[in-house]
Amino acid sequence: MPYRAPVTDFRFIFENVSDFAAVQATDRFADASPDMIEAILEGAGRIAEDVLDPLRRVGDMQGARLENGVVRTPDGFKQAFAQLAEGGWIALSAGQEHGGMGLPISITTAFNEMAAATAMSLGLCPLLTQGQVEALEHHASDEIKQMYLPRLISGEWTGTMNLTEPQAGSDVGALTTKAAPNGDGTYAITGQKIYITYGDHDMAENVCHLVLARLPDAPGGTKGISLFLVPKLIPDDQGRPGVANALKVVSLEHKMGIHGSPTAVMQYDGAVGWLIGEQNKGMAAMFTMMNNARLAVGAQGVGCAEGAYQHALAYAQDRSQMGRIIDHADVRRMLLTMKADTFAARAIAVNCAVAIDMETATHHESWRTRAALLTPIAKAFGTDVGCDVASIGIQIHGGMGFIEETGAAQFLRDARITPIYEGTNGIQAMDLVGRKMMDGGEAAFRLLDEIEADAERARADLPDLAEPVWQATESLREAVEWLVAQSDMRTRFAGSVPFLRAFARVLGGYYHMRAAMAEKGQGPRTKLARFYVARLLPEHAGLLTHAMAGAEDLYALSVDELAA
Amino acid sequence: MPYRAPVTDFRFIFENVSDFAAVQATDRFADASPDMIEAILEGAGRIAEDVLDPLRRVGDMQGARLENGVVRTPDGFKQAFAQLAEGGWIALSAGQEHGGMGLPISITTAFNEMAAATAMSLGLCPLLTQGQVEALEHHASDEIKQMYLPRLISGEWTGTMNLTEPQAGSDVGALTTKAAPNGDGTYAITGQKIYITYGDHDMAENVCHLVLARLPDAPGGTKGISLFLVPKLIPDDQGRPGVANALKVVSLEHKMGIHGSPTAVMQYDGAVGWLIGEQNKGMAAMFTMMNNARLAVGAQGVGCAEGAYQHALAYAQDRSQMGRIIDHADVRRMLLTMKADTFAARAIAVNCAVAIDMETATHHESWRTRAALLTPIAKAFGTDVGCDVASIGIQIHGGMGFIEETGAAQFLRDARITPIYEGTNGIQAMDLVGRKMMDGGEAAFRLLDEIEADAERARADLPDLAEPVWQATESLREAVEWLVAQSDMRTRFAGSVPFLRAFARVLGGYYHMRAAMAEKGQGPRTKLARFYVARLLPEHAGLLTHAMAGAEDLYALSVDELAA
Repeated sequence: MPYRAPVTDFRFIFENVSDFAAVQATDRFADASPDMIEAILEGAGRIAEDVLDPLRRVGDMQGARLENGVVRTPDGFKQAFAQLAEGGWIALSAGQEHGGMGLPISITTAFNEMAAATAMSLGLCPLLTQGQVEALEHHASDEIKQMYLPRLISGEWTGTMNLTEPQAGSDVGALTTKAAPNGDGTYAITGQKIYITYGDHDMAENVCHLVLARLPDAPGGTKGISLFLVPKLIPDDQGRPGVANALKVVSLEHKMGIHGSPTAVMQYDGAVGWLIGEQNKGMAAMFTMMNNARLAVGAQGVGCAEGAYQHALAYAQDRSQMGRIIDHADVRRMLLTMKADTFAARAIAVNCAVAIDMETATHHESWRTRAALLTPIAKAFGTDVGCDVASIGIQIHGGMGFIEETGAAQFLRDARITPIYEGTNGIQAMDLVGRKMMDGGEAAFRLLDEIEADAERARADLPDLAEPVWQATESLREAVEWLVAQSDMRTRFAGSVPFLRAFARVLGGYYHMRAAMAEKGQGPRTKLARFYVARLLPEHAGLLTHAMAGAEDLYALSVDELAA
Repeated sequence: MPYRAPVTDFRFIFENVSDFAAVQATDRFADASPDMIEAILEGAGRIAEDVLDPLRRVGDMQGARLENGVVRTPDGFKQAFAQLAEGGWIALSAGQEHGGMGLPISITTAFNEMAAATAMSLGLCPLLTQGQVEALEHHASDEIKQMYLPRLISGEWTGTMNLTEPQAGSDVGALTTKAAPNGDGTYAITGQKIYITYGDHDMAENVCHLVLARLPDAPGGTKGISLFLVPKLIPDDQGRPGVANALKVVSLEHKMGIHGSPTAVMQYDGAVGWLIGEQNKGMAAMFTMMNNARLAVGAQGVGCAEGAYQHALAYAQDRSQMGRIIDHADVRRMLLTMKADTFAARAIAVNCAVAIDMETATHHESWRTRAALLTPIAKAFGTDVGCDVASIGIQIHGGMGFIEETGAAQFLRDARITPIYEGTNGIQAMDLVGRKMMDGGEAAFRLLDEIEADAERARADLPDLAEPVWQATESLREAVEWLVAQSDMRTRFAGSVPFLRAFARVLGGYYHMRAAMAEKGQGPRTKLARFYVARLLPEHAGLLTHAMAGAEDLYALSVDELAA
């Protein structure tokens, strides 16, 4: 069944369940008028429905292929990418000085979700390019900016991120790729990188790699890493792609999902690269970019959930078994779980995006810390919801769900990468209970105060929502208090994943409650909020018990006993 | 890494966490001495490790193929099946009068788990054959038994079950396949069946189909369904496979997992069949068989979990990232979750099997109702654990988990069918809160009484386990009381899935506690029990809240509102 973009839901969340109005009130985003936002959301929805949606299955079936050293994308990808480029969809939030639209990240988040719901494997190419644009905007020299940014933003060229090496995994500090000065201001990059999404392809005339590498005599660990821009074809003075650089795709991975997206092993053999930012400050530059990429991946998870939900709903409406299956209580329970969690995850993602936009526009510390707090939650919860909802979608299909032709299985196979890449969800959770609580929980408490204040306001009209949300927030507050009192980081990490999920559960309850408040307790969003608060929110209590269980029992069993 | 069969764990559960000793004390299973059980478990472990384990990946890569109307299995399947047959592993529990070993289902359950952990797609062939043997033992004429049973039990021939039709899905009563009397005591079977596992293959000389069909003038719905045995090759008087019957494989499905197992669309065009059991009583015959098949599928889920756990543990031990990843708290949490839930699901499956064996041996009503109560729980929880643990296994691998070469993804792709086939887990949950509570909850209360009695015994020495298990059991008791008081079945069904999971959570706590009691509170099982009780058991409370939320909110949203 054809995808229908959730434009209405995004508009509702922007208007009623986030501070997006505050973003629009800033000078920085003054152009983002309600009319313009409406037009952009509608346009994004149309391109997702008309151009991207038809490519989901062909991308899965054909996959990307490496043929004689050249990567070929599935049929239709090249044309669709050209349409994205033509419409200005590659990097919506890129600055206007280099041809971008300068739109809020909130809007890009909506687009990223829609792309993931339809042709996630294609959508990864603009998504990676967005990240590169952002890194260059913040850290590159003017010369590099002028050469690269307009071409990346227009989609003539595309971008990749090269962090991981075979021996290092998430431990970026262990990387060994070398950068040797060529004496002319450029560097010779040598090493192997893995998991390079769109490391090569046939949709644009050049591919620009951001590569982490070590300069000679650089310190060990993450303090000795620098960032380099390494184009596939070295631009001439006019910016035309010229001589081939000394790099190649060694192989493509055979993956569980997102088959259409080429995941390359890249080999650099003294390839010419340009230093981006300062020497040995590559990690900082990478982090700027990674933060927004994390939100973008969270939005991908929401997209997988939305796509799977629409797909399962259509099946449940059509399918008859002892009556239409949509009339069975358990099928309803599954559909409502999908819908309620998708809304919760979307609202969290939008609120995170709004905080980033407000930080960009106002440079206020309170928005910076809000964005920092919400980013790991948006990433981990959004992607977990993506997998869970896709799996429920399979279940609703019964035996048909396991047959690939139905398309239900693909949502799960595609979604399953999202809890892993851009920092595993375990890393997100450690970030939340570690770095993001270095303020003694201040940013968290401030958010919990806001929730409780709103719950107080809702108590008279919507007691069945306000009271459980208020209570759950209090329980979460106690857990945050306990957490920040733990100086042993292992104790925090031991419960970090259930803690993050409990935090998301409470936020979900809050945003559902706000949706009901906006409806004045009358309407479908209120009914959905009641379902969420009665059935899904209670999960937080068991999770918080788990979160505060300490680390001792995790190490009580020896490795030999684990293997026995 | 090579699979190591959990022989020790099975032995421990048999001896300490189930009433298996009572099974051994019966006349019916007097042969199943401790020495013999030991030998069988060791033998099952060896064949799984040596013969089946090497086929997991080749089965996935090659898949079963339909070539010119003939189904070809992956390389090595035929030889491995011959070894299973040679060793007597096809139908361990089949009666001795036709060449079976007459072993308890408890032992078959262990074998089924090991086969699923290693080559699940191959193991399905004996599993389906087991079901057919059981159906024929209970319902076939002596003539049919003598012709078919020795050949099925020896693995010369194999069996299938043909329930589903394209238009009917789980609604078996809607089937339309016809059976017309031929006048010679046989019937002409005409119709199409889907999802026929091992509907054809090259591992045995004949394939015997049990087919549900309607006789002329049969009543509508499930009351008009009869069961027929329809061989691929019609046996001659000496039982040699002779003339080809009028049936064929139309196509094989392209599935998410278990690629090595051919899932056929079967076409019957007046094929010769023999009535099994009475006219119009086909559903009853099917149900006898399905109950044990449900337990077998639960054991498959446990097998997927065990395989995924061993795989992830080996990776976590080898992999270094900022130290060995096995030393990271969150990796430990994941590994312990996998191990603790695998144990819980295995113990539930064994206790269900023991109840079936005791029913077989003693015909006591109390064992019959115990088996009936535990079967949907063993099936649904075992298979949910299979998927959840396999997904955690992917997560532990990080990016490598998404790359098919690692093998982590296959466990999830294979496991994902188990919550669907042999009655979806939603159907299991409806069975639990519906049919299995028709006794007013008596069977459930009796089990809860036993748990509380054991918790009382454990209270002095293991208060940190006994108290939470006792409390959780009380909460579950209240939920059962609430449930049986609901005369509106929709209200029961609305919370049936979370109710079943909460029941399993409590049982898991109980069996972990018994393991700790057997260790006298000293040892690795006690440590694992503490992890489970502190971190996983608390989930039951939120689930029970969900279970008792009623049905109203599920129908509050209209279908149009669901689609909005």
